[in-house]
Amino acid sequence: MSSTVNAIAATSTTDPLVRTTIERREVGPRDVLIEISYAGICHSDIHTVRGEWGRVPYPLTVGHEIVGHVTQVGTEVTRHAAGDRVGVGCMVNSCRECDNCRAGQEQYCLNGNTGTYAAVDRDGTVTQGGYSTHIVVDEDFVLRVPASIPLEAAAPLLCAGITTYSPLAHWQAGPGKKVAVVGMGGLGHMAVKIAAAMGAEVTVLSQTLGKKDDGLAFGAAHYHATSDPDTFDRLANSFDLIINTVSAPVDMASYLRLLRLDGTLVAVGAPPEPLPVQVFTLFGNRRSFAGSSIGGIAETQEMLDFCAEHGIASEVEVIDADAVNEAYDRVLKSDVRYRFVIDVDTLR
Amino acid sequence: MSSTVNAIAATSTTDPLVRTTIERREVGPRDVLIEISYAGICHSDIHTVRGEWGRVPYPLTVGHEIVGHVTQVGTEVTRHAAGDRVGVGCMVNSCRECDNCRAGQEQYCLNGNTGTYAAVDRDGTVTQGGYSTHIVVDEDFVLRVPASIPLEAAAPLLCAGITTYSPLAHWQAGPGKKVAVVGMGGLGHMAVKIAAAMGAEVTVLSQTLGKKDDGLAFGAAHYHATSDPDTFDRLANSFDLIINTVSAPVDMASYLRLLRLDGTLVAVGAPPEPLPVQVFTLFGNRRSFAGSSIGGIAETQEMLDFCAEHGIASEVEVIDADAVNEAYDRVLKSDVRYRFVIDVDTLR
Repeated sequence: MSSTVNAIAATSTTDPLVRTTIERREVGPRDVLIEISYAGICHSDIHTVRGEWGRVPYPLTVGHEIVGHVTQVGTEVTRHAAGDRVGVGCMVNSCRECDNCRAGQEQYCLNGNTGTYAAVDRDGTVTQGGYSTHIVVDEDFVLRVPASIPLEAAAPLLCAGITTYSPLAHWQAGPGKKVAVVGMGGLGHMAVKIAAAMGAEVTVLSQTLGKKDDGLAFGAAHYHATSDPDTFDRLANSFDLIINTVSAPVDMASYLRLLRLDGTLVAVGAPPEPLPVQVFTLFGNRRSFAGSSIGGIAETQEMLDFCAEHGIASEVEVIDADAVNEAYDRVLKSDVRYRFVIDVDTLR
Repeated sequence: MSSTVNAIAATSTTDPLVRTTIERREVGPRDVLIEISYAGICHSDIHTVRGEWGRVPYPLTVGHEIVGHVTQVGTEVTRHAAGDRVGVGCMVNSCRECDNCRAGQEQYCLNGNTGTYAAVDRDGTVTQGGYSTHIVVDEDFVLRVPASIPLEAAAPLLCAGITTYSPLAHWQAGPGKKVAVVGMGGLGHMAVKIAAAMGAEVTVLSQTLGKKDDGLAFGAAHYHATSDPDTFDRLANSFDLIINTVSAPVDMASYLRLLRLDGTLVAVGAPPEPLPVQVFTLFGNRRSFAGSSIGGIAETQEMLDFCAEHGIASEVEVIDADAVNEAYDRVLKSDVRYRFVIDVDTLR
């Protein structure tokens, strides 16, 4: 039997989010029912509800940085049990049959992974996200949250954490590697912490030096303002890896020229419009421009365990459910250090 | 004492190339004097003499696919001796001190490698290329041409060969890898032969099926026309590596979508204008877009030895020196299978 649960939903591209109720499916044999404690606010949530990434099935509840406790499991569930601290990220299903799924890279499912919200699930219903009191998710897409990470600080790891961990791991950030992080927001601050914990020499490239003290505290060795044109001259041919967390268009040539031999610039945020890339800039130093999208389920678990081991998590500002619209406005002004997390108890 | 040698030179962006003489420097202690037998015609030569890549120091002799025999060596030369079959490619010097030079990647010299023509050499003179009877080159930038490769078929290896070998080796084309080669011209036909010799499963993507028989004979397993829109649907998510040899702008999204998980599209030719890249296309399959420029000196030797070992070389059409202008016109119409090579004996 499905259940009706409290939630916050968007009803149009322009109206504020409102309190409402949504349906959660009956807990199937392989499902886990989670009582949500916290849900992070990701910039993607805002893009989505405002229709900037395509048509939206209103009313829609967003949120894909979800943590809480298991309250019920299906008869065939083996990975989770009632009482477990768990999390759910950006996807709740995938085809499980394609080459990428079989390689544990469900985020790149060739038949399309099932997003945590605004996607059509395998049963034909539209998925609804984490700004709600409960969620029912296939056990394979539920992560274990280590006990040492406070739940509210763990929530953003499910998107901001894995989105930065995955390219840092894939492109082998570590001792001897120089890594630049562009942008010091929700993703950027996690990239700094994770890259530093991996042992890389981390440089932050931010518009201003306003968050420099934070950046150094998070583990960065260097911090430069991109508003200073000297920055791009001084750092030419420096980096093995640049993680660009900024969704706004940037001048690609300026950033690509910062890469040393065989360096890669990885975009984890993206503007809707194409970016002009000068191929001659790629010729220098055999540079690469790549994209990376969240991470696989096994890798997300690896990231959570890595964060626990290294004592890192997200910096969060916990808000009441009713403050979500105000929080959206502040996210758009980059006025948050570094992630808003909704206290879902305020929705009950 | 410098010497005056016969050559063909461009005198303006528009006039035909003409016979002339140029000066070659005295053979220094570390220099090799080469009597040139053949010089390949590369599309870069045409771009350069026509001023399409920047200002040109006229009169200019181009040509950077040079093979011949050593006729004299400097007092300190140890790598080469009179009578040796040798070659010279796209560069004749580099700083030798930067990180990239010390890594054997002189083509990416951070102080700028010295191009075989149109560059200012370390002694302040302007370098002159291979459409001439002799050239004097520092021994470190002179390659050994294995005896089993006919000299005329070896000439294009010095640019077309290494330009395709280097990315194929770097991105590990080999057994189990699916490699697409875009374009079946001077570079493309070498990419097919080399990738097939490395053991990769090679697909040619050419505008039409006009050169299909050749492509299969060179080792391709598949051959598709890019003028057929079905091609891009049928081959979506297929390739580990795409070598794009086409200098004209292509629709990046169409080609990037052909890459499977962790695939890379490597440009070895480039239009002067930036290419619009949709970052969301890079997100899928964690795709990369990279550039690659010729190869290092040690790698160029490795390529020549590899070609000898596998019995491959360039397909050439040998022409007299006086046919160079006509050959340029035919290159621009893609009317050559697959590389023009000037018989430099006709310049003596």
